[in-house]
Amino acid sequence: MPDAGVADLAESIAAGERRALARGISLVEDEGPGFEELLDALHGRLGAARRIGITGPPGAGKSTLTAALVRHHVEEGLTVGVIAVDPTSPFTGGALLGDRIRMTELATEPGVFIRSMASRGSVGGLATATREAADLMDAAGYDRVLLETLGVGQSELDIAASADTTAVVLVPESGDGIQAMKAGLMEVADLFVVNKADRPGADRLESEIRVMMAIRGGNALEAIRSHHGARIDRPADTEDAGEWAKPVLQTVASDGRGVEELAAALDRHFEWLNGTGRLERRRADRRLRRARDALLRLAGGDVSRVWQNAPSQLSDRLRSNELSPYAAARELYESWRIALRPGG
Amino acid sequence: MPDAGVADLAESIAAGERRALARGISLVEDEGPGFEELLDALHGRLGAARRIGITGPPGAGKSTLTAALVRHHVEEGLTVGVIAVDPTSPFTGGALLGDRIRMTELATEPGVFIRSMASRGSVGGLATATREAADLMDAAGYDRVLLETLGVGQSELDIAASADTTAVVLVPESGDGIQAMKAGLMEVADLFVVNKADRPGADRLESEIRVMMAIRGGNALEAIRSHHGARIDRPADTEDAGEWAKPVLQTVASDGRGVEELAAALDRHFEWLNGTGRLERRRADRRLRRARDALLRLAGGDVSRVWQNAPSQLSDRLRSNELSPYAAARELYESWRIALRPGG
Repeated sequence: MPDAGVADLAESIAAGERRALARGISLVEDEGPGFEELLDALHGRLGAARRIGITGPPGAGKSTLTAALVRHHVEEGLTVGVIAVDPTSPFTGGALLGDRIRMTELATEPGVFIRSMASRGSVGGLATATREAADLMDAAGYDRVLLETLGVGQSELDIAASADTTAVVLVPESGDGIQAMKAGLMEVADLFVVNKADRPGADRLESEIRVMMAIRGGNALEAIRSHHGARIDRPADTEDAGEWAKPVLQTVASDGRGVEELAAALDRHFEWLNGTGRLERRRADRRLRRARDALLRLAGGDVSRVWQNAPSQLSDRLRSNELSPYAAARELYESWRIALRPGG
Repeated sequence: MPDAGVADLAESIAAGERRALARGISLVEDEGPGFEELLDALHGRLGAARRIGITGPPGAGKSTLTAALVRHHVEEGLTVGVIAVDPTSPFTGGALLGDRIRMTELATEPGVFIRSMASRGSVGGLATATREAADLMDAAGYDRVLLETLGVGQSELDIAASADTTAVVLVPESGDGIQAMKAGLMEVADLFVVNKADRPGADRLESEIRVMMAIRGGNALEAIRSHHGARIDRPADTEDAGEWAKPVLQTVASDGRGVEELAAALDRHFEWLNGTGRLERRRADRRLRRARDALLRLAGGDVSRVWQNAPSQLSDRLRSNELSPYAAARELYESWRIALRPGG
């Protein structure tokens, strides 16, 4: 049963109070007292927001594209939450001052809520905290929740994969586009964006992406055809997306070119998910994974307590290398089993 | 007490048998039966290898540099183990065919052992498995263990940080060098390598790195001086490295230029660590962290079992959204505490 403070906070978040939302996200990020009760209390209000992952290598212009999407949605009359987990993003203070100032301006718009997430010590902590921050924005009534993450690294890809729709952003002439794609980006993409498309090489990159998709889809002939100029206009990815053909779009986020088309493609993907029943299945699967993560976190809390209360002679023996880490862990584990007894 | 199979395997690894080492690493990677006993049995043999992290953004030439370092060490008469955890690395099959063939040739040299690590599902699993694979190479008697990792993403940086010495590799003209550095690379670096230094912009990148180090070190005046041409020739980083001045080296890994100087700088760093007592302190700290990770893994194993044995009505209620993930986790946690009772 949530205590009064947490219940009040949940109510204020559900009522759309910005300061309550900010407080709630901090509580979740810090795993502060009552954070799980808060998430539990708001659980029934989830599901209205569309969660969109924007991911790609550093320098792809993800933040500028995110900002452009926010502006587009605001003009449509929608409310938007943004979570930036990219340490190189201007949202998180990681880029040039000019960019950061523009992002800060955006954050003062009514109907826009921007939050950056710092990397945390605990294993898997960042991905979990990010998903939970997205939950709070969802519960607070935001129509769209945009998750900007670096598309390199396992936990970062986990975040991207937690969205309903994930856009992978690449730039021409980076030379690393295709290389970076191999690092799992191909798998998480529901659509591709060739950003900074006013640079030379945009068409070539688009064509390379189509070739790679065709190869993944197992259609080598189509891959070769595509490489020789003929565009693929039917589904390239047949792995698990069924009849969804991953679009490849070109944008120039800095002047807004292609952003409307991107928003439309994101909407189309969401409608496809929803229409085919995949949305509900994906979200149900995610609830199961979330429960498992929550259980692991409860166990992790126990581990932390056991560790903090470990006898100092144990850490001395570890430091002096008398005891291996595995033997020490086994010793602590056994004592923990005893301590875990209900009522113990 | 290790069973006979694990004890034999440990002995064969310690005797330097390649196939045993390969089997041991697979066992550890899969968390197969007896893997912790194996690590425990070999624990007393650790410490002779110098562990060197090679990290940086995709496309920086880390693999080519790693290969060049391997060749250099082999010529010195040293044995070298390589662990590649970079999915874009030719070692892991992620790059151009020509590169991959050259890496494969290297792997057949006597005294060289190359292993790539795949990303794993379990939280923090990759970083842990990589550290343990490095342990096995250490126990097998390799003089150097090189860890090639992508320098973006938290778990990847964790791997880099587990080395005795970490080299951060950047390339001129990437445009992302400085941006990528902000993603935690600066913190893990013991030295910097400007690779592909035959390209224009190498001196500029070197100068930018020195400026950033000076700024981090808090010496703004020096930063400005450095930016205007005067090189910093005294310690720039005063955060925790004490009197270690992080060198910035230029290499052209593809033709071996600068590799000897890099090897010498790595050796100097190791001798500095050793001479100041930092090596032993760092390694003792790491043993403590390893014990904590091992304890967390034991708990994680319990969680998996609890999860697998969860009543199907619980997952039904999660799928249908009758139950929040937090409420489900709490229910399972309570039943787990009962099951965990010694003898239970």
